Amino acid sequence: MTATELLSEIADVGRDPVRGGWSRHVATPAESDLTEWFVERAGRRGLDVERDGNGNTWAWWGAPGPDAVVTGSHLDSVPGGGQFDGPLGVASALSAVDTLSDRGFRPSRPFAVVVFAEEEGGRFGLPCLGSRLLTGSFDADRARALRDADGVTLAEALTTRGDDPARLGADPDRLARIGTFVELHVEQGRALEVPVGVGSTIVAHGRWRLRFTGQGNHAGTTATADRRDPMIPAAETVLAVRRAARETDARATVGRLVPRPGGTNVIASTVDLWLDVRTFTGSPEPVVDTVLAAARCAARAEGCAVESTTESLGGAVTLDEALAARMAAAIPGAPSLPTAAGHDAGILAAHVPSGMLHVRNPTGVSHAPGEHAEDDDVEEGVRALADVLEELAR
Amino acid sequence: MTATELLSEIADVGRDPVRGGWSRHVATPAESDLTEWFVERAGRRGLDVERDGNGNTWAWWGAPGPDAVVTGSHLDSVPGGGQFDGPLGVASALSAVDTLSDRGFRPSRPFAVVVFAEEEGGRFGLPCLGSRLLTGSFDADRARALRDADGVTLAEALTTRGDDPARLGADPDRLARIGTFVELHVEQGRALEVPVGVGSTIVAHGRWRLRFTGQGNHAGTTATADRRDPMIPAAETVLAVRRAARETDARATVGRLVPRPGGTNVIASTVDLWLDVRTFTGSPEPVVDTVLAAARCAARAEGCAVESTTESLGGAVTLDEALAARMAAAIPGAPSLPTAAGHDAGILAAHVPSGMLHVRNPTGVSHAPGEHAEDDDVEEGVRALADVLEELAR
Repeated sequence: MTATELLSEIADVGRDPVRGGWSRHVATPAESDLTEWFVERAGRRGLDVERDGNGNTWAWWGAPGPDAVVTGSHLDSVPGGGQFDGPLGVASALSAVDTLSDRGFRPSRPFAVVVFAEEEGGRFGLPCLGSRLLTGSFDADRARALRDADGVTLAEALTTRGDDPARLGADPDRLARIGTFVELHVEQGRALEVPVGVGSTIVAHGRWRLRFTGQGNHAGTTATADRRDPMIPAAETVLAVRRAARETDARATVGRLVPRPGGTNVIASTVDLWLDVRTFTGSPEPVVDTVLAAARCAARAEGCAVESTTESLGGAVTLDEALAARMAAAIPGAPSLPTAAGHDAGILAAHVPSGMLHVRNPTGVSHAPGEHAEDDDVEEGVRALADVLEELAR
Repeated sequence: MTATELLSEIADVGRDPVRGGWSRHVATPAESDLTEWFVERAGRRGLDVERDGNGNTWAWWGAPGPDAVVTGSHLDSVPGGGQFDGPLGVASALSAVDTLSDRGFRPSRPFAVVVFAEEEGGRFGLPCLGSRLLTGSFDADRARALRDADGVTLAEALTTRGDDPARLGADPDRLARIGTFVELHVEQGRALEVPVGVGSTIVAHGRWRLRFTGQGNHAGTTATADRRDPMIPAAETVLAVRRAARETDARATVGRLVPRPGGTNVIASTVDLWLDVRTFTGSPEPVVDTVLAAARCAARAEGCAVESTTESLGGAVTLDEALAARMAAAIPGAPSLPTAAGHDAGILAAHVPSGMLHVRNPTGVSHAPGEHAEDDDVEEGVRALADVLEELAR
């Protein structure tokens, strides 16, 4: 089956009528439907499925074991996202299994397709949650306490779904099975001019939450001079983020901003904004420091307070160079390219040789409904992935 | 029963664990509980309750009829609001009925206590919806099509509640019954230095929604120069609103701002912000024009579009001067004071003699949990309201 056919089977899952696109978040009906689909489709291929304690789903071709070749990606999305970021890697993995089977290939090494949980952090704010927990790079207690926009903790959401939040956490035995990890992913800019490229590096990336606190009050009766309106320093900070990005090579974004209580006729009492910063060279922290200095200054001028929380921070990742060279050799003409997006492969890379394949995106749009890959390019991607997996697992 | 005792009976209805304070919106369980409470408490006092087609609830002391003395307010709140704005007027009306009964008074004119629906516009964005519909100053078709933050229309919400949205609209027969309307309300600033004051004017007030449209995209892979991020002109506009307020005597606020899709790692595709403007002299429109000019300029600079929608607009209201004089005479020492907040009395004032009593608020905070009135002042308010009603209905 082609990856395009597989993607079309889930095209209606998690459509978001308000935002447009797809919203597929952890511990929602959309995620249940997607997991059910994956389990069923893996079963049809004779793969044995297991769910780990962190919500990641593993489908083994043959017996699980050490030094496994593992491929896969994620099925969750950002709010109102596109349909390729994540699912393309999962559908391509299943389709590559078909291709390899059709070739009469049987892996000599243990072989698995994996779906990582909450890669986007779309609900609980922490990207690559499933792979971070698996590798022990994020603490299980902190994970259980993460809250979504409605104040529901991850522990509560998992319990509601029937899962045991006590099972969250580092899983060294399962991690030790992975010999090599390859993630295929839709390219998220316009950098790729041929159907398939090989990933080289992943940029440094952090997320911060800034909370501005002022005095909630009546929008009519409160004199301008008496206001302590946190929306003012929040707006100043959005502009400071843009200035900081312009003055460096960083990518810096405020895409989420929540005034509370959020009434038209109410001066906000707090404004939360989330800052996403990625840097090609060095750490994002100097950029964040510049932004925080501006935020503090603006908050002080309005009689407001501001506090900042680091939600995640990871340095730049160089994907395994030997693996990248081996993949490039298996895919004639595939260029090497860096990515400014975060990926589970970037988390795993600190522990096991990890690599990425990118499939051309003609729109250059990602995390939005306009994200796209042409059918022919998707097929090229599956062929390349199958060639790489055959080379690795033979 | 004192108004404080009555308020304490509903103190737990609609508490908002996320925002703090109370969120009591139209067609929610909180509103059902509050309506049920009002109907039951009115019934205990021998009042006959009727619900009109616009969701307003009327409790008649004696037979309904023309030239009625009507008092009341609303039970809904802004999101995360205080517990006095609205409910104080309803509780004081019921308590004033008790006071008048204790005095052995029976009204010679028809007499009703009214609860108006959706005064704050907290769910569907249009303040004073119940009184606007009653008086025909807002079109029923437009009302049915109003949408909440989740995209649910008012018509759908009413249908879900079991009400017929076809019944919305001007109700001249019911309006014609009102001879005089008096609304008691907590003061929303610090202007009142004695327990009770008499309302003089209500400021001109409008609400506008500005929608900025850019290009949703990936927060990491999209170069700064390639961005069309609607958050940037939205932030510029928040600051322009503050400048415009500083340069005039207007009160201008952005308390609600919604980026879509609202993901940390996603450049927004749209940002909606709501602008609330009140002016003591003249119309809010020149202030809004200044803001819109700045918004358009900022949007253009970012490659974004902006469109503006007037959600409501009402001129300044002078409450009935003869009624105000009569009320002032009945309440020795009560000063006359204007209000910068909107009220159903301001909508009714165009049709029937309408007046307001304000009860001192020591914090000066309103539309927030810190809104307050001392028990003694609340009792003074009830006594003053009872005196005024006795004078009007004798």
